[in-house]
Amino acid sequence: MKNFMDKDFLLDTETAKKLFHNWAEDMPICDYHCHLSPKEIYENKAPENISQLWLSGDHYKWRAMRSCGVDERYCTGDATDKEKFEKFGYALQYCIGNPLYHWAHIELQRYFGIDTPLNAKTAGDIYERANKAIKDGDFRPQSLIMRSNVKVVCTTDDPVDSLEYHKLLKNVEGFDCQVLPSFRPDKALNAHLDGFADYIKELGKAAGVEINSYKDVIKALLIRADYFDSVGCKVSDQAFDYPPYCVADDSEIEEIFAKAMRGERITLQECDKYRTPVILTLGEKYNELGWAMEIHIGAMRNNNTAMFEKLGADTGFDSVGDAEIALPLSRFLDALNVKNKLPKTILFNLNDKDNTVLGTMLGNFQSADADSKIQFGPAWWFLDTMDGMTNQMKTLGNLGVLGKFVGMETDSRSFTSYGRHEYFRRIMCALIGKWVEDGWYAYDEEILEEIVKGICYNNAIKYFEF
Amino acid sequence: MKNFMDKDFLLDTETAKKLFHNWAEDMPICDYHCHLSPKEIYENKAPENISQLWLSGDHYKWRAMRSCGVDERYCTGDATDKEKFEKFGYALQYCIGNPLYHWAHIELQRYFGIDTPLNAKTAGDIYERANKAIKDGDFRPQSLIMRSNVKVVCTTDDPVDSLEYHKLLKNVEGFDCQVLPSFRPDKALNAHLDGFADYIKELGKAAGVEINSYKDVIKALLIRADYFDSVGCKVSDQAFDYPPYCVADDSEIEEIFAKAMRGERITLQECDKYRTPVILTLGEKYNELGWAMEIHIGAMRNNNTAMFEKLGADTGFDSVGDAEIALPLSRFLDALNVKNKLPKTILFNLNDKDNTVLGTMLGNFQSADADSKIQFGPAWWFLDTMDGMTNQMKTLGNLGVLGKFVGMETDSRSFTSYGRHEYFRRIMCALIGKWVEDGWYAYDEEILEEIVKGICYNNAIKYFEF
Amino acid sequence: MKNFMDKDFLLDTETAKKLFHNWAEDMPICDYHCHLSPKEIYENKAPENISQLWLSGDHYKWRAMRSCGVDERYCTGDATDKEKFEKFGYALQYCIGNPLYHWAHIELQRYFGIDTPLNAKTAGDIYERANKAIKDGDFRPQSLIMRSNVKVVCTTDDPVDSLEYHKLLKNVEGFDCQVLPSFRPDKALNAHLDGFADYIKELGKAAGVEINSYKDVIKALLIRADYFDSVGCKVSDQAFDYPPYCVADDSEIEEIFAKAMRGERITLQECDKYRTPVILTLGEKYNELGWAMEIHIGAMRNNNTAMFEKLGADTGFDSVGDAEIALPLSRFLDALNVKNKLPKTILFNLNDKDNTVLGTMLGNFQSADADSKIQFGPAWWFLDTMDGMTNQMKTLGNLGVLGKFVGMETDSRSFTSYGRHEYFRRIMCALIGKWVEDGWYAYDEEILEEIVKGICYNNAIKYFEF
Repeated sequence: MKNFMDKDFLLDTETAKKLFHNWAEDMPICDYHCHLSPKEIYENKAPENISQLWLSGDHYKWRAMRSCGVDERYCTGDATDKEKFEKFGYALQYCIGNPLYHWAHIELQRYFGIDTPLNAKTAGDIYERANKAIKDGDFRPQSLIMRSNVKVVCTTDDPVDSLEYHKLLKNVEGFDCQVLPSFRPDKALNAHLDGFADYIKELGKAAGVEINSYKDVIKALLIRADYFDSVGCKVSDQAFDYPPYCVADDSEIEEIFAKAMRGERITLQECDKYRTPVILTLGEKYNELGWAMEIHIGAMRNNNTAMFEKLGADTGFDSVGDAEIALPLSRFLDALNVKNKLPKTILFNLNDKDNTVLGTMLGNFQSADADSKIQFGPAWWFLDTMDGMTNQMKTLGNLGVLGKFVGMETDSRSFTSYGRHEYFRRIMCALIGKWVEDGWYAYDEEILEEIVKGICYNNAIKYFEF
Repeated sequence: MKNFMDKDFLLDTETAKKLFHNWAEDMPICDYHCHLSPKEIYENKAPENISQLWLSGDHYKWRAMRSCGVDERYCTGDATDKEKFEKFGYALQYCIGNPLYHWAHIELQRYFGIDTPLNAKTAGDIYERANKAIKDGDFRPQSLIMRSNVKVVCTTDDPVDSLEYHKLLKNVEGFDCQVLPSFRPDKALNAHLDGFADYIKELGKAAGVEINSYKDVIKALLIRADYFDSVGCKVSDQAFDYPPYCVADDSEIEEIFAKAMRGERITLQECDKYRTPVILTLGEKYNELGWAMEIHIGAMRNNNTAMFEKLGADTGFDSVGDAEIALPLSRFLDALNVKNKLPKTILFNLNDKDNTVLGTMLGNFQSADADSKIQFGPAWWFLDTMDGMTNQMKTLGNLGVLGKFVGMETDSRSFTSYGRHEYFRRIMCALIGKWVEDGWYAYDEEILEEIVKGICYNNAIKYFEF
Repeated sequence: MKNFMDKDFLLDTETAKKLFHNWAEDMPICDYHCHLSPKEIYENKAPENISQLWLSGDHYKWRAMRSCGVDERYCTGDATDKEKFEKFGYALQYCIGNPLYHWAHIELQRYFGIDTPLNAKTAGDIYERANKAIKDGDFRPQSLIMRSNVKVVCTTDDPVDSLEYHKLLKNVEGFDCQVLPSFRPDKALNAHLDGFADYIKELGKAAGVEINSYKDVIKALLIRADYFDSVGCKVSDQAFDYPPYCVADDSEIEEIFAKAMRGERITLQECDKYRTPVILTLGEKYNELGWAMEIHIGAMRNNNTAMFEKLGADTGFDSVGDAEIALPLSRFLDALNVKNKLPKTILFNLNDKDNTVLGTMLGNFQSADADSKIQFGPAWWFLDTMDGMTNQMKTLGNLGVLGKFVGMETDSRSFTSYGRHEYFRRIMCALIGKWVEDGWYAYDEEILEEIVKGICYNNAIKYFEF
């Protein structure tokens, strides 16, 4: 039996160990997509205890606890921090096969120096030891980022955001990490959801544009994109249930827009007609600015109405959709490409049934603009698992060019989540190591070093031009 | 080379062997979903030969034979029992990689004491030896159930069923197994299929309700649910091509219902409008009664019209559908949950492309009502294979909490099919054993014993409250 | 570490080695579906260099190069053959996990006697050595086919084709391989695409039928099918985005047909109404002629409009669709079967999310007409990878009868692509070998030899009646 999660965790061949320890382990991190708060990074407050760090905002952990029959009191309620941690320890012991189990132990080992497996029996003791480590050490956001060797962090920001903290962070002495905004225009695109009209007014104000037409929305977004660019933005991000692509004429779009602005409910298909020209124009803008366009496809959000009303969004009640995506995605990308305006694009899917569609879609639009200009985004959220990451890399290997992959991002809200990069790198080295070990890929140190370091870090830096 | 299907079959690590032989092997069986006939259990007749036991009603075996070009005569026709067995032996040798191959040999070993691989060459001899074992031993249903250490059997029953055999079985001396009914209202829901109007009349009679409206259907079903409850029912089961969820107003539903009752063909969408309020009301009732609601999604039945006309349903001409399920399933569950009336629910999919959808849907509706109140049902029917079971458990591990899984049921019509529980347990122990052996999960005997015994039996007993 | 791609490449158990080297390796090849040009086979010209052989028409390689940011000049443009080869070597080194990597090295080893791994550093040298091998050896199409031990080649031909080269090839002395046409009526079915009306005129001319109605189209196709049959055709092939099945009445179909013949754009649903009776009548004809009907489902073609306009079809801008297929496919096959006119049928899917649908669809229509009359086609095009082939065979093993599988075809346009049969056989032997080695399938040399040789060659010869 191998030791529990030791230095060779997941590295099941000699070549895998070599790839990881010689080349992958010490590479810096480029976290090109996450949900960290630039304000929290700037304010740089130390957490009081491990529950605050781990359990105050992590819907992954809440879901696991709820799945074990743990009462909501211990997730988002008024139980004490210690009680919450103990309940989490209880739940974790049943999470066999879940990435949470590995993430938690990697974080305990790396950040807290604790090797003990966390479960119901050990939770009380670990709570004390972890809190001692917090008290004795430095667990402020900037320290955690720097200890994790992170060189770039791209947060996720609304076009109306002032980006004040991004600006302030440029001048923090001794903090050697670029914290850059990403442009996420979802609220301006989702005209079928509550709050659209109010949001559009806010957008108009932020851009200094009076919005009377959907074309004014576009105008405002373009102004904000230029502003984001001036603060160092190089990435945009959009989340779609499915890729919208529905061509309509101007007058129909204006009617739909007017209806939505009056606060009336519009259908999903109407919304698609509205957002198609908006997102196409944004795509052209991203291309002009040299940004990458990230497209996250397939989340189905806020399924539990009762809990949404109690706790709001992003509290652990999202799941995965299964709409058809191949045709609209093809038409959307082609519409930009045919005008020679397709930006660098990263396609992410949340339903692994779409792996083959995305893995083959890439090849339709590659060009000499960049190494793998169209990227297959790393396994994300519910797919951010050993199986999910392995399948994503195998799909990319089978259908595209794995050696040019921009690699991992955390997509996380937590300052200790950089262990996920380590987890990814171990899995990647295990996969490539096995191929080499089995004689499926030629052993050439120079090439393997380039590929491994590329996927860890170098490919992303080159691709995004950070 | 390992021995062919010996005591360590599938157990490829030392830990797997330990988990299976120390903890899993001797746990009793809770078969919470099957298609056994309570009448046959009660009448307790011995089979005449192995063909009668194995081949008289098993569409899995007929399909395999037909796929080898075996004439229908040897499947459902007038060939002799010996000829049929020999043809099955011939077909089985080509079924490399098929669970039938493993099921057959597990059953030969455990029930008949026969270790010889079955193929065209050995079929004649095995036929004789198996029949001698039947003659010399006790192969009556109650004996087979008790030899298999089965403590609970939930059959699948129509709401109109009198449940007389379930009642009789309560008083059979020396038969130490609860045989409980399950409530399966499919015929009352499928208003678009032939025979609906006649069935509804039968239902009205069984419930003592005159049915003139779809609301009377609901009334009758609720009465029958109470009756089932009084006989010990704790499980309901519904089979859907896709989860129906289509809200309409009362008058439209009444029109649709009237049309169907006149024997006119209604569309699938019309049927969805009718069955949405029926199944929602039933869901509330299940919750009130403390039953679990099983939902089997994705079978596409009776594809071969010619054979359906010759042999009827459940004769081996069903396959797997591929409709979108995420949105209607979410809306259906939410509609119950928002009223605080969602029962314990087990979601089964027949198309593994839906694994990720179900694996993430669970988490939307978990609560403190039960440990993993929303369960991901074990791999079923066409997915009841080594790969299917492994993928279901990996998905549940990745996306939910495997340690709280209620585990396997046979879904079978055969009294020797309990070998499928052994097969499942071996696969489960192999999976968990490998994770532990590789250092991916901490080795803690107390916790592992609880998890393994839980998945084998204890979790189900606790969940269903048997 | 195992040697790089040596004689035991992929054969990871002793049994696998035995199965491959004793039984699989020397079996002849039946390539029952490919896109070779009968004209090129007949003309039998030697290539000038390896770029001409490998890079002049291979969209797989172009896609890989474009994915590495290689300029189009080096793919389809005016760079020199040497430059193109060097760029390909550069791209190949990043293709870790891609079948191209394995195909290229198998071909270098088997046809050129070159064992050196191809990459940016070695490309120049390998280019010289390969060209020397071409100059010193015999790389003409007929020689390559015979050296590869190919006994049957089924090309893919339009119903209007004269088949003159197929006829000529029957009389080439010393060329011991049947080169047979396959009937591919796609252009007559795709009434929604450009060029339909012109094509129908051409078809009428070829068949000697004046076409004024969709029934005349059918008449012409039936005449051409008889002609193909007279030249030795035994296979038809149709490519569908999704299986069309949409019943309409005659007058509506005639209107749709007339509209398409006027060059007006018809919708996809209109096209389905037109092509449903056409393909059904063809299916009956295939059955009457004893042909097999191949159905390739799921390609989404010509996604990149700009490149399509520059380079035309089949140049590397296709990907995989994700439409629902279960219901229309079931209805289509049943419509033929209910009339007792269903031909032998091979179902191919390009999206592996459909594996379970196809794997279970087979069983709906098996009969004593042939061993596995309905076949699950081998992993194809984008799925023609180690994972794709393994998954297809596991699916077939789990859901059907792997021992009756007709096995591999190349689907290729290249004369050195027969290495793909070797690749397939290694994967098949590894899979079966592992099952035997692990005690999951009984070790019986006679049965295993029959199964392995069957999947390599014998099953196909028997199935197609070549």
